[in-house]
Amino acid sequence: MKAIAEVQVIPIGVGVSVRTEVKRAHQLLADSGLEVELHANGTNLEGELDEIFRAVTHVHETLHAEGVVRLSTHLKIGTRMDKEPTLGGKLF
Amino acid sequence: MKAIAEVQVIPIGVGVSVRTEVKRAHQLLADSGLEVELHANGTNLEGELDEIFRAVTHVHETLHAEGVVRLSTHLKIGTRMDKEPTLGGKLF
Amino acid sequence: MKAIAEVQVIPIGVGVSVRTEVKRAHQLLADSGLEVELHANGTNLEGELDEIFRAVTHVHETLHAEGVVRLSTHLKIGTRMDKEPTLGGKLF
Amino acid sequence: MKAIAEVQVIPIGVGVSVRTEVKRAHQLLADSGLEVELHANGTNLEGELDEIFRAVTHVHETLHAEGVVRLSTHLKIGTRMDKEPTLGGKLF
Repeated sequence: MKAIAEVQVIPIGVGVSVRTEVKRAHQLLADSGLEVELHANGTNLEGELDEIFRAVTHVHETLHAEGVVRLSTHLKIGTRMDKEPTLGGKLF
Repeated sequence: MKAIAEVQVIPIGVGVSVRTEVKRAHQLLADSGLEVELHANGTNLEGELDEIFRAVTHVHETLHAEGVVRLSTHLKIGTRMDKEPTLGGKLF
Repeated sequence: MKAIAEVQVIPIGVGVSVRTEVKRAHQLLADSGLEVELHANGTNLEGELDEIFRAVTHVHETLHAEGVVRLSTHLKIGTRMDKEPTLGGKLF
Repeated sequence: MKAIAEVQVIPIGVGVSVRTEVKRAHQLLADSGLEVELHANGTNLEGELDEIFRAVTHVHETLHAEGVVRLSTHLKIGTRMDKEPTLGGKLF
């Protein structure tokens, strides 16, 4: 099932600056092969819902393995049956 | 990886009242075997992150198969390495 | 305009445990006079939209004044014209 | 208090296509004088928190006055005391 998503990863316990971890999370999402678009409040994704969830799981696993103790992630997921959802199709 | 989550499923195109679909989504989450807590803005979940994502995928697949054309879902995911996250542990 | 809301306040830079600040945020929301319900992923609110936004602003101002350097808040807002939205009306 | 925000407005009950209402919401936010950036999952905003909340209230009031019966809005708010938050500062 194709989906449009937004992923915002918030590392907790790494201090006030979270840039390193947020950048790392975005890079991992970009490396997943999904179409990605970075913006100021997260990374937009386009692809199969299964692959999106796999990519988010990989971000949590990787950041925890790299020492981030706690993560709070906010996800938006959009799916529709009448046509294929695309990132570009949501702009005007 | 154990996680705490919140799932809010918004059906689009079924009319102003979304109660039937929201109730169905909650029931599907409850049937997943994960620990669930319904509240006014979603369903809280506790369990393995993989199973949480599988349950959310199942909600989208099922509601679409049952005729809901479009779904917008908002997910919160919390994971931590210092102790096991639980729904009860987040209350005070 | 009456609204149903959810507020989740995430303090950044206070360490891995955020319980003190999250509890403080909930207490400030409860003190606002709005109807509140605490759950594992936030505080649900019922009341006038203006008062909800005022309460959230007060949380940010107070926590910052008390030394929390950075806050990330996630809000859900629901309004409808066909009937008065209530927290209880969203359960089944 | 300066803030970075994201606003996603979901009209409920207008049918499967929500483009007209989402475009209208974005236009109202852009007309507010706040700095805005449209992306596939919402509009990012930069400005005073009071003005951001005023703009979101105006979107709800206007869309309801124009006939949208129900709205579900998701907001992200970021504030920090160590430096001024900007939309551009969150990219890398």
